[in-house]
Amino acid sequence: MKTLADAFEHTLKDIYYAENAIARALPKVIEAVSQNEFKSALLSHLAETKEQIKILAKVFKTIGVSPSGEKCDAIEGLIKETDGIIKEAKGSVARNAALAGACQAVEHYEIARYGTLREWAKTLKNEEAHVLLSEILDMEKAANNKLNAIAINSLNKD
Amino acid sequence: MKTLADAFEHTLKDIYYAENAIARALPKVIEAVSQNEFKSALLSHLAETKEQIKILAKVFKTIGVSPSGEKCDAIEGLIKETDGIIKEAKGSVARNAALAGACQAVEHYEIARYGTLREWAKTLKNEEAHVLLSEILDMEKAANNKLNAIAINSLNKD
Repeated sequence: MKTLADAFEHTLKDIYYAENAIARALPKVIEAVSQNEFKSALLSHLAETKEQIKILAKVFKTIGVSPSGEKCDAIEGLIKETDGIIKEAKGSVARNAALAGACQAVEHYEIARYGTLREWAKTLKNEEAHVLLSEILDMEKAANNKLNAIAINSLNKD
Repeated sequence: MKTLADAFEHTLKDIYYAENAIARALPKVIEAVSQNEFKSALLSHLAETKEQIKILAKVFKTIGVSPSGEKCDAIEGLIKETDGIIKEAKGSVARNAALAGACQAVEHYEIARYGTLREWAKTLKNEEAHVLLSEILDMEKAANNKLNAIAINSLNKD
């Protein structure tokens, strides 16, 4: 990693790996959730994640690189944490609230990464990538706000 | 983990572990950074992290539990990612920008966790914890905004 363009490519591969890992991990979380509104928000987010993977493929195209992932330790850790909650909080009333917290941590990770990538695209004068990454960033922020509202208005109170 | 109070205690131990891990990891990041403004922001954040560990001890006190950490896989992954950048981007002009991105991912993790903990404290009617956690959340948000400004205004352009 020598230049900002290298850092951009590296981080793009990192988030591509992360989104694919999330798409694989979400069905188990959805299965563990016992509140309808939360379950339905996660189902939409799974569809959205698959859409984001397609948008990321377009971002790869702007730099002439084939879409591929690079192992992302952060998302591995975040998913491991979520798996832990599924196991530890089995049959608990707090499981939904704890899972919502863990999902928000994942959302925040994505918000941080897309925020950085989007700014780097701008600095690198890659306008197309800037627009595509801003689009995903807005989706992630909306997903996080939705989870936040569900957690505050119902899950935490349950 | 059966109740929201259990989830609160578990997540408090998780973030206590994370803050201590950050306090141990930051000096290596500070050493690797070669831009003064960024270095100075991280030095302040190290002092702030130590202060936050003390505030967390007060939060533990509100629930009558001794401060202790529980291994947090997410922060382990985030720190591993930062270590990777220090190694891979040695001598690169992009190292500062890449490290700022990684630090912002850590900040966002903390923002997510404190946001959740603060809301749980409110639901659990633990007013003192709510105030203390809100105080830390504001510090983390300010730290993230500062890093963001440094990254956009200088690191990315370097």
